Amino acid sequence: MSGTVDTNPLFVIFGATGDLMGRKLLPVLHTFDTHGKLPGGLHVLGVARKPWDDTAFRAFAVEHLQREAPGEAANRANWCQQHLNYHSLDTTSAAGWSALRARIEAIEKEQGLSGNRILYLALPSVAFPEVVEGIGSVGLSKSPGWTRVVIEKPFGTDLASAQALNATLHRVFDERQVYRIDHYLGKETVQNLLVFRFANMFIESLWNQRFVEHVQITVAESLGVEARAAYYDGTGALRDMVQNHLTQLLTLVAMEVPPSFSDNAVRDEKVKVLRCIESIQPSDVVFGQYGEGEIDGKKVPAYRSEPEVSAASNTETFVAVWLRVANWRWHGVPFFLRTGKRMPEKSTRIVVTFRSPPIAFFRSEQPSERNPDRVTIILQPEEGFDLAFEIKVPGDTQRTQTHKMHFRYAEVFGPVADAYETLLLDVVRGDQTLFVRADEVEESWRLFDPVLRAKHPVVVYPAGTRGPEEAAQLVERAGHEWSEE
Amino acid sequence: MSGTVDTNPLFVIFGATGDLMGRKLLPVLHTFDTHGKLPGGLHVLGVARKPWDDTAFRAFAVEHLQREAPGEAANRANWCQQHLNYHSLDTTSAAGWSALRARIEAIEKEQGLSGNRILYLALPSVAFPEVVEGIGSVGLSKSPGWTRVVIEKPFGTDLASAQALNATLHRVFDERQVYRIDHYLGKETVQNLLVFRFANMFIESLWNQRFVEHVQITVAESLGVEARAAYYDGTGALRDMVQNHLTQLLTLVAMEVPPSFSDNAVRDEKVKVLRCIESIQPSDVVFGQYGEGEIDGKKVPAYRSEPEVSAASNTETFVAVWLRVANWRWHGVPFFLRTGKRMPEKSTRIVVTFRSPPIAFFRSEQPSERNPDRVTIILQPEEGFDLAFEIKVPGDTQRTQTHKMHFRYAEVFGPVADAYETLLLDVVRGDQTLFVRADEVEESWRLFDPVLRAKHPVVVYPAGTRGPEEAAQLVERAGHEWSEE
Repeated sequence: MSGTVDTNPLFVIFGATGDLMGRKLLPVLHTFDTHGKLPGGLHVLGVARKPWDDTAFRAFAVEHLQREAPGEAANRANWCQQHLNYHSLDTTSAAGWSALRARIEAIEKEQGLSGNRILYLALPSVAFPEVVEGIGSVGLSKSPGWTRVVIEKPFGTDLASAQALNATLHRVFDERQVYRIDHYLGKETVQNLLVFRFANMFIESLWNQRFVEHVQITVAESLGVEARAAYYDGTGALRDMVQNHLTQLLTLVAMEVPPSFSDNAVRDEKVKVLRCIESIQPSDVVFGQYGEGEIDGKKVPAYRSEPEVSAASNTETFVAVWLRVANWRWHGVPFFLRTGKRMPEKSTRIVVTFRSPPIAFFRSEQPSERNPDRVTIILQPEEGFDLAFEIKVPGDTQRTQTHKMHFRYAEVFGPVADAYETLLLDVVRGDQTLFVRADEVEESWRLFDPVLRAKHPVVVYPAGTRGPEEAAQLVERAGHEWSEE
Repeated sequence: MSGTVDTNPLFVIFGATGDLMGRKLLPVLHTFDTHGKLPGGLHVLGVARKPWDDTAFRAFAVEHLQREAPGEAANRANWCQQHLNYHSLDTTSAAGWSALRARIEAIEKEQGLSGNRILYLALPSVAFPEVVEGIGSVGLSKSPGWTRVVIEKPFGTDLASAQALNATLHRVFDERQVYRIDHYLGKETVQNLLVFRFANMFIESLWNQRFVEHVQITVAESLGVEARAAYYDGTGALRDMVQNHLTQLLTLVAMEVPPSFSDNAVRDEKVKVLRCIESIQPSDVVFGQYGEGEIDGKKVPAYRSEPEVSAASNTETFVAVWLRVANWRWHGVPFFLRTGKRMPEKSTRIVVTFRSPPIAFFRSEQPSERNPDRVTIILQPEEGFDLAFEIKVPGDTQRTQTHKMHFRYAEVFGPVADAYETLLLDVVRGDQTLFVRADEVEESWRLFDPVLRAKHPVVVYPAGTRGPEEAAQLVERAGHEWSEE
């Protein structure tokens, strides 16, 4: 190696023989390199229990790369040879940890690296404490450069376990080193939500209780529990979706304008939203579980009949909840969150409905009396925005009809980058804006912990429907209805 | 005829052998009948100086119908036979007026009409006083039913002549009977402007000086003076376009929410806008006249070289003016009006630009520093709306780009009705909302009379450009620029 120092990080991936590595991280790292996102070079050290050597790991990597991003086999093999190393680690062995540290330092020396490191914990959460403590035990939380640690959800399963996990992390790392990934935050539309709000005065001007009537956030899946039953049956929709993804979306929709766009300035505002949400009353929560039913004309089984699910399971596969953000901006504006499996279609969207004119001069052809003026921020199945408004029916009439203006990322920019690509590059850059801070995790659990403990009744809904009737009633109580388009 | 009375009006068209009748009114009346807009029947009496009989008039009508809306000749002839009559009138003869009255009453009796009448003055304005007085002299301003009089612009050529014309009209008619046609107001987009504002709370909420930075109204023509030179050279763009069409558009954009949507409630608010506009200072006006130049790669002559235009003509073919609406809603928001002949393209649009965010977190890829957030209301070449906003450029960036959501009437509703169709039907219904009231005409002249008298210098601009450089400077003085898309 010449005298120039490569400041690119060494990616140390714990759990490197697992599903996340094969399916997501490897293709993203490959893209980084081939698209020139990391000029200087890409350096990866896979770490796992399996007693593999570099060759075996590279064979695993070639196989997965070919599956996710097919290319010429010799090319792929060559790329893996050049960029990937492997270290087998018994996380219970002190000597093992010392050997890992030595291996890391050897690679850095050999490849002329500056000592910047990304420690990616692609592990089940049960393995976190031991690995974090192992890292700390041999001083791998510090390096001659910077060291950042990436962890995946779940960030605890209730308030106490989240606090314990944060405590473990903070014994070894500063919060400034910790990157908690919620992949929803890496989606282009979600990042753009802040731009949409803060780069467009006409949007931000309307974004408060004077003009907004209510907000809905829906994450609907048409799939059932699929292969995840073993994990899901002990988890449920509240922990799996609401406490993290939906709540994160809510904080981005509701947050105040930050004083700057720095990562902590943004996250300070997100935490403030969580602190302003009133305690959730039992009457504001609906839990459901899918029964048998039909999706796209195909019969599908009830949740309780799924493989690996107990026939008496009371796990919720659907949650609807009414949140009240008690601050000046949002007082009196209901935020309705809803997620469910086996809904009629896959759809993730945020709907912000504006207030109706105080006096209606015109007669709408809308079937319902509800106000149609709304912005819909669409995350799935495609990313984009809709703006629905009333327009006069042409000709000799004063009737109006609802129409939509629309914007779709893919129509303008072509295919959108994978969320992991965005997020991993932010880790390299040290930008924590799109990562969940310890206090965000805890505030969110503080909100939902009582809901978990309340053991809400779980109402069965037929697969292929939009959840229990009680969810519709929840919104109707506020004089609104769920927006399904 | 049976005992049932037909309450449809008799259309009495003065100037029935002229261009407006042949090109516009006849096709519209034909459409009314064939589209069932006037169930009961259509009854037309053409009136003009030409010594024609019914047969000659019907031949004229068939010819014009075939040109504007071709169909089977026998059908057309049959239709004209059934619906059209003609009366030759010498407007200087008292006996002639009495004979006209007798003829009208005879037709009404014969066809079982209730006596409702529309007197349409499809005449050059110089003929108005004599015809209005003739109508009054034989009591034709009243009838057993209602009588409405329709007049075409110009409604005077300055304040004094407008007042004189209104006085003439009011000697014979109540203002409630008078329908002054400004065909811009019959366009679907213009009618919809009020719906867009008042049926969509998110638009109306933004529609004031807190959120709007400035407003532009442009009526650009690519044509030159064409066959109208004889009229135009004594008139100019201020009288031909600004005092009427552009000012009407301004009042619709700027008016307060009326207490109801009745015709006089709306017109009261429009007049209030005119009364709030500050006197126009000479420095806020730019007059231009097109020189020779190129349009679509074709050389076109200077205005002064056009047939029937004086080689020393100082008539303005371009006007730009900065208007200040000094009320609570619009204080400090510049309204820029602009119209011109021989501009690069035909385009009529209203652009409402919103204020910029007070702090810019993101870097726009916009070439200029101007705020791109705006609503564009398009009247020509197609009717619709655009909403321009900033969106994040995807990927690893905090840059933004301007994009547009759009709505086009024709894409949603198919071809849009002719403005005359809308307006004439409103006359039948007695809805004066889209017609210009006497006080609107006079207030508008009160505003522009001093501009006419000031004899602004007329700056020559090359045909095919956007007017004199001074017009760009006018807007730049306020820190803005003309929006050309």
